[in-house]
Amino acid sequence: MANTIALDAMGGDHGPSVTIPAALAALAGQPDLRLILVGPRDVIQAELARHRAGESARLSIQHASQTVSMDEPPAHALRTKKDSSMRVAIDLVKSGGAQACVSSGNTGALMATARFVLRTLPGIDRPAIITAWPTMHGHVHILDLGANVDSTPEQLLQFGIMGSLLVSALEGKADPQVCLLNIGVEDIKGTEAVKQAAALFRASDLNYGGFIEGDEIFTGHADVVVCDGFVGNVVTKASEGLAKMISQLMKQAFMRNLFTRLAGAVALPVINAFRKSVDTRRYNGASLVGLNGIVVKSHGGADAVAFEYAILVALAEIKKQVPQLIGRRLASMHAQGAPA
Amino acid sequence: MANTIALDAMGGDHGPSVTIPAALAALAGQPDLRLILVGPRDVIQAELARHRAGESARLSIQHASQTVSMDEPPAHALRTKKDSSMRVAIDLVKSGGAQACVSSGNTGALMATARFVLRTLPGIDRPAIITAWPTMHGHVHILDLGANVDSTPEQLLQFGIMGSLLVSALEGKADPQVCLLNIGVEDIKGTEAVKQAAALFRASDLNYGGFIEGDEIFTGHADVVVCDGFVGNVVTKASEGLAKMISQLMKQAFMRNLFTRLAGAVALPVINAFRKSVDTRRYNGASLVGLNGIVVKSHGGADAVAFEYAILVALAEIKKQVPQLIGRRLASMHAQGAPA
Repeated sequence: MANTIALDAMGGDHGPSVTIPAALAALAGQPDLRLILVGPRDVIQAELARHRAGESARLSIQHASQTVSMDEPPAHALRTKKDSSMRVAIDLVKSGGAQACVSSGNTGALMATARFVLRTLPGIDRPAIITAWPTMHGHVHILDLGANVDSTPEQLLQFGIMGSLLVSALEGKADPQVCLLNIGVEDIKGTEAVKQAAALFRASDLNYGGFIEGDEIFTGHADVVVCDGFVGNVVTKASEGLAKMISQLMKQAFMRNLFTRLAGAVALPVINAFRKSVDTRRYNGASLVGLNGIVVKSHGGADAVAFEYAILVALAEIKKQVPQLIGRRLASMHAQGAPA
Repeated sequence: MANTIALDAMGGDHGPSVTIPAALAALAGQPDLRLILVGPRDVIQAELARHRAGESARLSIQHASQTVSMDEPPAHALRTKKDSSMRVAIDLVKSGGAQACVSSGNTGALMATARFVLRTLPGIDRPAIITAWPTMHGHVHILDLGANVDSTPEQLLQFGIMGSLLVSALEGKADPQVCLLNIGVEDIKGTEAVKQAAALFRASDLNYGGFIEGDEIFTGHADVVVCDGFVGNVVTKASEGLAKMISQLMKQAFMRNLFTRLAGAVALPVINAFRKSVDTRRYNGASLVGLNGIVVKSHGGADAVAFEYAILVALAEIKKQVPQLIGRRLASMHAQGAPA
C-alpha cells in the first residue's frame, strides 16, 4: 500500500510516549498516510489506549520483542537484536511492507542496520546523513552529519551528488547549488581532502558554488553544503546547542522581574512568532541517503511535535521517490563514464 | 614601559576608521594602558585629527609604509611586506617596545609573521588560536580556530595544555576542565587523531573531562574545548553566522507591523539586555598562543566596540603574563619528562 511508513516505536530517549502521539497527529494531518508501529505489541497497545486510539485501516502494529538501547554498540545491535523494533522497521522497508522507516534510536545502530539490510545504491561507497537547516533565505541542506569520518574526496563528491538530487526532488529546484564547507574561500585553504574534492566538484556536472565558510551556511547562497561527517556532526550539534541557549537566555531576560514579565506579555505574540522561525523541532528528521530505501533519523531527544516532522520528511521522500531518483542518476552517470 | 600594546592600525575590513576610535576608547577606559598605532603616519594623524586627538604620553605613532591585504598569501606578505603595519607591530613585541600586538588583519599572514618573528615556545610544534564564547554558565575557551588543519594527537595535547594555562591565568581557575570535541562520548567514536589524543589527555596531568559533543560546548562543564583547527574554524564561524541570523530574525519579527513595533518599543530594554548577553562583539579577540609574545587577532569585520574588546584581551594577557606562564609550565613538564 502506498505511503506506508514503519515507525520504530521504541527509539529515542522517550520511546512510545513520544512516538505514538506523534504518529496519531501525523495520521490526523495526512489523509494519505499509513503507519505501522513497530515494537512490543502490549506496550504499543497500552500507549494507544492512553490516547483512546487503536489499530485501524491506516494504523497497524508489527510486533518486535527487542529494543536497541541508545548507547549500544552498532555491531552488537546488528548481531544480537534481529527482532528489535529498529531492525523489524527496516526489514519492512526491505520487504516492501513499508516504503520508509523512521527511528529516533541509536544513530550508529540505525545506520549499520540500514546499510546491512537495504544495501547502498550502486556507485555509493557509504551512505550519508543529510538534514535541512533554516537560513536567512529559507533553508539549506547539509551532509554528512556523522555517518562518516575522514571522508575521501570521492566520497565528498558522492555526498554532493546525493544532496543535489535530494534537494532537487524535494524542492523542485532544477539545479541546486552545491558548496564545499571550508575554512576559507581561497584555493590554498583547507585539508587535502577538501582541496582534492574541489577539483572533482569542478569537473562534475553539479552546479558547484565553490568553498563556503561556516557563517555562510546561514547567510549564503548554497542549497547544499557538503562536509566530512565529523565536521557536519559537530557543527549541527553546536548550532542546536547555541539556538537552545539563545532561546533560554531570551526567556530568562523576560522572566527577570515584574517589568520584564509585563513587557514579555505585550511582546509574547511577536516572541512566539520569532521562536517559531528558529524552532529546531521544525527541522527534525535527517535522511540516510545512498541506500535502497528511505530511512529517516529523528533526534533522540525529539518531542512529539519534532517526531511528527520527521514522519513528514519520510512521507515527502516517498512521494518524490528520492532513492529511485538518486539510483537512476547514478546509473546514468556510470553509463556516461562521468566521475562518481 | 608596562602595558604597551602595538596596534596594527591598517588591519581589518575597515582599517583606521575602526582601529583608531577603538584605541581612543580603550585609552579612556584603561588608565594603565599605553598604545602604539602602527601604519602610515599621515593616515593615522588624519584619522586622529578627525577625533580631535593626537599623540600623547600614552599614545604614539610608529610609521609603517606598507599594508597586508586581507586576501594576500601569507608567504607573500612575509617575504615582501617587511615594513607593513602588521609586521612592524609584531617587531615591536619582539624588540620589547610593546608587550603585545593586536591586529584585525589577514589571519594567515598574522600567524605566519608572528611565528617567524616571535618563534614558538620550546615544546610547541605549532601555535594555535584560542577564543572565548558565551555559554549557559559563563563562558568557555575553544582552540584551535584555524591555524592548524589535520592536527596530530600530540598537537591536540599541546593545545589542551596551552588552553588550560591561559584560562587558569586569565580567570584564576586553579585547574580548568579540558574536554576534547568529538561526535559522541563513547571511546569508539571519532577520528583516529581524536581517539589517540584522548589517551594522551588521560595520561597527562590536565584536568581532563573526556569527550564532549557540539551542543555541550554551550551547555556543558568544559572550561577549555580542544579540537582540530578545521573543526574549530567552521564551528566558530557557523555559530557567529547563526547568532547573527537569529538576531536579524528577531529584529524582523518586531518590525513587521505597527503592533509588533509597539510591542518592540515596550520590550526594548529587555531585548537590548538579551542582545547584549549574546553580543558576539564582546567576545572579539582571539589569542595566538604558543608564541614568545602576545598576539591578539580581532575579527576582520570588527567594529570599534568589538576592536576595543580585542585590545582588552591583550591587556589582560600582559597583566597575567600568559606566554611566560605557558613557557615555564612547558619547561617544568619537560624537566619532569611528562608528555608534551
